[in-house]
Amino acid sequence: MRKVAIVGIGQTPFGKHYEKDTRELAEEAIFKAMKDAGAKAEDIQIAFVGSVGMDPSTPMMIGQIALEQMGIKGIPITRLENACASGSNALHLAWLAIQSGMYDVALALGVEKMSTPTIEQARMAMRLGGGDALLEGSMGLFPPGIFAMIAQIYMEKYDARREDLAMVSVKNHKHASLNPLAQYQREVSLEEVLNSRPVSWPLGVLDCCPISDGAACAILASEEATRRFSGIPVWIKASVQVSGKYNDLEDLRPDTTIKAGELAYKMAGIGPEEIDFAEVHDCFSFAEIMHYEDLGFCKRGEGARMIREKKTFLGGEIPVNTSGGLLAKGHPLAATGIAQAYEAVLQLRGGAGKRQVENAKFGLTHNGGGFRHGDVGIVVVHIFGKEK
Amino acid sequence: MRKVAIVGIGQTPFGKHYEKDTRELAEEAIFKAMKDAGAKAEDIQIAFVGSVGMDPSTPMMIGQIALEQMGIKGIPITRLENACASGSNALHLAWLAIQSGMYDVALALGVEKMSTPTIEQARMAMRLGGGDALLEGSMGLFPPGIFAMIAQIYMEKYDARREDLAMVSVKNHKHASLNPLAQYQREVSLEEVLNSRPVSWPLGVLDCCPISDGAACAILASEEATRRFSGIPVWIKASVQVSGKYNDLEDLRPDTTIKAGELAYKMAGIGPEEIDFAEVHDCFSFAEIMHYEDLGFCKRGEGARMIREKKTFLGGEIPVNTSGGLLAKGHPLAATGIAQAYEAVLQLRGGAGKRQVENAKFGLTHNGGGFRHGDVGIVVVHIFGKEK
Repeated sequence: MRKVAIVGIGQTPFGKHYEKDTRELAEEAIFKAMKDAGAKAEDIQIAFVGSVGMDPSTPMMIGQIALEQMGIKGIPITRLENACASGSNALHLAWLAIQSGMYDVALALGVEKMSTPTIEQARMAMRLGGGDALLEGSMGLFPPGIFAMIAQIYMEKYDARREDLAMVSVKNHKHASLNPLAQYQREVSLEEVLNSRPVSWPLGVLDCCPISDGAACAILASEEATRRFSGIPVWIKASVQVSGKYNDLEDLRPDTTIKAGELAYKMAGIGPEEIDFAEVHDCFSFAEIMHYEDLGFCKRGEGARMIREKKTFLGGEIPVNTSGGLLAKGHPLAATGIAQAYEAVLQLRGGAGKRQVENAKFGLTHNGGGFRHGDVGIVVVHIFGKEK
Repeated sequence: MRKVAIVGIGQTPFGKHYEKDTRELAEEAIFKAMKDAGAKAEDIQIAFVGSVGMDPSTPMMIGQIALEQMGIKGIPITRLENACASGSNALHLAWLAIQSGMYDVALALGVEKMSTPTIEQARMAMRLGGGDALLEGSMGLFPPGIFAMIAQIYMEKYDARREDLAMVSVKNHKHASLNPLAQYQREVSLEEVLNSRPVSWPLGVLDCCPISDGAACAILASEEATRRFSGIPVWIKASVQVSGKYNDLEDLRPDTTIKAGELAYKMAGIGPEEIDFAEVHDCFSFAEIMHYEDLGFCKRGEGARMIREKKTFLGGEIPVNTSGGLLAKGHPLAATGIAQAYEAVLQLRGGAGKRQVENAKFGLTHNGGGFRHGDVGIVVVHIFGKEK
């Protein structure tokens, strides 16, 4: 396996960008990542562009269209879609392309514009519904309902209270208040979350990630090629993508994250106890608690205690979602996976400012997408390291 | 570079499948390819699924959804879009994944349903418009107009007549009459093409590819892994994907195909004179003539004479589009690239029946997609060989 590093990262502010279209958001992230890497257009040999296409004005081949503006053309460019994990899918394929030995420098981009409400967008949301839109979508099994059901079973079976779920949102908003690129840069109180408009019990609106626009970009290089760039390299110790198995569900809980995590730890040659911080897919507050367990940060049933004891707050044992996570940084679908890598790179470079995790050596990112027959359609886990 | 073969292929009939949705079309192609390869679900290690998503009922993650029906799950699955070359893009990435050494068996699928007319679909067509929909699409620069302009310049400058263009359609319909999976299995006369409803001069409706539904699938294996399968292997001698350079246009003609062809010949270690047959992107009759030249089957300006002298008919010097091509076999966008590979595999296995090219050793496929600032957004060229 070749050693691969991220040598440049860029991210737009996440939020509502009514004045910008998909292409403009993409261009901003590309420009920032290229500048951070100290890269020229000719350096980029292959590109992967995640875009679900929620904005109906997103053109086909958005990759070619956005990259051309930076002079990046002629090379193989692939636009891909994998629901909420499209960005991580792009990152994984950029890494895989370098593994092939045929490329040394690859670009991964994720971009999404969701703030333009149209009939098409509503229909897209329908499609997102259950993964199997015909079966599950028509029964109202949309993501909030699915996670609410799993949360209810969990709360009945394990030591977890409504307040524990809400505390995840409190934490992530607190972290986001330290992130100048986050969509919501203000803290929320436990009471605010508990009293927020109900969506699907036990989840209130402040337990759910928002509608966001944004883009993020990463430049990847093989070990030899890192020398071409001025950006401080952060090493990809593991890159794993899996899809759901759609069976053997215990407590209605998919095991996709458990499998992706196991494979990633094996590839990186480290265990969860060595992870210093993590960005996990907190599409709903409860999801984060489930992921603590599935990624091995604690045992099954102990996730709620982790947040109650503030172990995942900044300054705690293993800070989770220091960027603010999907809940407060925002969740522009295809941008999310690469924005997680952006946070990991900042942290491992020691450049995360007020939200810096001290002495961080390893960071993990976890991005999931889509639901189908109770299981997650895709999970991607990356482990990043400060050292080669 | 690892040696990679296609060990299984499958294709649905191309045409209007009002009774089937995207998923059902995909499933049929997967089933046929798996059967042809003699593959079990557990054999597939990674999958790439081309789908532009022209049918608004196409769900996100169509790959996971269709593959699950064949029991193929848990593995990395990527849905991608690259306009009319999405299928070849999937094939190229499946090949690249095997090149990485991390996978030995990969599946490439292309599927498109276009026969369901909706407002969304019309808007999708708008997006297809010029690649740069805002600039070129709004000026009416849709694909027929773009190719018609290039054809007009060509006819003015070189030895080419309206009848030469029409003859391409006559040939491809003749070939399609021998292909039981083609959308139009009847011959058309030169007069029928010349008198067909005008679209954009010199192109009539019979010079333009139709609206089609369909799917095609290929199973790829590394040299060592071919032994696991009963399907006769056909070897991928070259797999090249490029994007447009958007400049230096002579006669308004993109040079994307020239570049992809040169790279592919170099990778395969053979020249155009060794190609025994080719499937090229005849989205319009004129395009095929241009591609003869760009792929080196003749010199610039001599393309029209090739068709006039029937060199590219079955039985001629280098038969082109023996399947019927996009013009008569049909063009379900993302399925096209893999359907071209399907034809190449049939021919090199000696299983093409009435349209068999005798003693074929090398076949070339050429698939393009999208227009932007006068250049093609993506071109993919594959060269297939009978021998390892």
